[in-house]
Amino acid sequence: MLTKNEIKLIASLGQKKQRLKHRLFTVEGKKTVAEFLKSHFKLHHLYALSDDYICPREKFSLVTEAELKKISALTTPQQVVAVFEIPNANEIVSDKLILALDAVRDPGNLGTIIRLCDWFGIEHLVCSETTVDCYNPKVVQATMGSLTRVNVSYLNLEEFLKTSTVQKFGAFMDGTNIYESTLPKQGILIMGNEANGISTEIEALIENRLGIPHFSAHQETESLNVATATAILLSEFKRRD
Amino acid sequence: MLTKNEIKLIASLGQKKQRLKHRLFTVEGKKTVAEFLKSHFKLHHLYALSDDYICPREKFSLVTEAELKKISALTTPQQVVAVFEIPNANEIVSDKLILALDAVRDPGNLGTIIRLCDWFGIEHLVCSETTVDCYNPKVVQATMGSLTRVNVSYLNLEEFLKTSTVQKFGAFMDGTNIYESTLPKQGILIMGNEANGISTEIEALIENRLGIPHFSAHQETESLNVATATAILLSEFKRRD
Repeated sequence: MLTKNEIKLIASLGQKKQRLKHRLFTVEGKKTVAEFLKSHFKLHHLYALSDDYICPREKFSLVTEAELKKISALTTPQQVVAVFEIPNANEIVSDKLILALDAVRDPGNLGTIIRLCDWFGIEHLVCSETTVDCYNPKVVQATMGSLTRVNVSYLNLEEFLKTSTVQKFGAFMDGTNIYESTLPKQGILIMGNEANGISTEIEALIENRLGIPHFSAHQETESLNVATATAILLSEFKRRD
Repeated sequence: MLTKNEIKLIASLGQKKQRLKHRLFTVEGKKTVAEFLKSHFKLHHLYALSDDYICPREKFSLVTEAELKKISALTTPQQVVAVFEIPNANEIVSDKLILALDAVRDPGNLGTIIRLCDWFGIEHLVCSETTVDCYNPKVVQATMGSLTRVNVSYLNLEEFLKTSTVQKFGAFMDGTNIYESTLPKQGILIMGNEANGISTEIEALIENRLGIPHFSAHQETESLNVATATAILLSEFKRRD
């Protein structure tokens, strides 16, 4: 039986403020929950329609479909809602490429970018405080478990870049042709906001302006979506590794 | 004043069956509508809150916010709903790369892929009849005008590939490293369904199996989303053009 307080707590985790207060977030879906259970994330409690999950007994509650509906963020609940602890940020030390996001706002875009980090072996994803929260239920849903394999940190991006000594690369509409650029193994690649790109303050700290040339005969051609641009840039960095 | 029949017709265009019957589809948003008005697409009728659109007077209706809400597919209507004619399919002749989709189902993915075609100068996008309709309001919304610059055809993909004499490339999880493959200027690149990839019948017609290597230390790493995989593959074909 779910108590009123449990329902209230879990439902409140849809809000960033409440997630940060309780240092908890939710994961849904059998496959994704199984991936989180196997990972370094610490389980707080698991609520499911059946008992086929490997987790301590005191952290497990069998619930009804009606109860699951009350705590799920999905229109169609997926058998299980698990509450995990938000981990403390890891130290950002890497001799490889680091990806940084400057105010990426769309949960779907962040989810896709986390999956790309996982694919391309990017260990650290650094986000400005204005970037959408990676523990937002929509982002967790979109990452499909990749979130367990990428370290995501939220920090003052300007300060972080100022204290970093590696080369900084940024994606710009009018940047230098990426296909003809020299790309090192170590460095920081910065991607900007969906509508406004990289902010002026961050731009001032970037030595290398990269761009993806377009091959269209039409001038009106729109910019690429930030997630697809990230896919192309990471592919370019990594294929030369 | 909007008549009941007009409202009924426009609202019905949310369904594929009705779009095909009437050979009409809707476009919303000032910027996107302006792009369609400048394009080869033929306007059927335009409904807007103000009269700042370049279109024949007999095809224009000033409407109220309440009326716009009745004909818009969006939660928050964007000033204008324009109804355009679905064009007849162009003949698919190209000495460049053609992109083909085998049962891509998600409107957002198709929208992103059409934008990628626009960016990378792909003139023809060929879709299996099982692929989501490009005149679906969600797809039109996601393409942001790119749909006016890419020829999209729906056909029997198996027949089309059988009669085509150019080289065929397909994206597979276990395909040959794309970074080390020889890629011609002319050919057909085939992308598969979100969950199942390329179907067996289509696979049998493909000479070149391409794959994007992953750089992750983790075995569990998921496959890439079909739109991001398309971004990387098109970038690889085009940078060597």
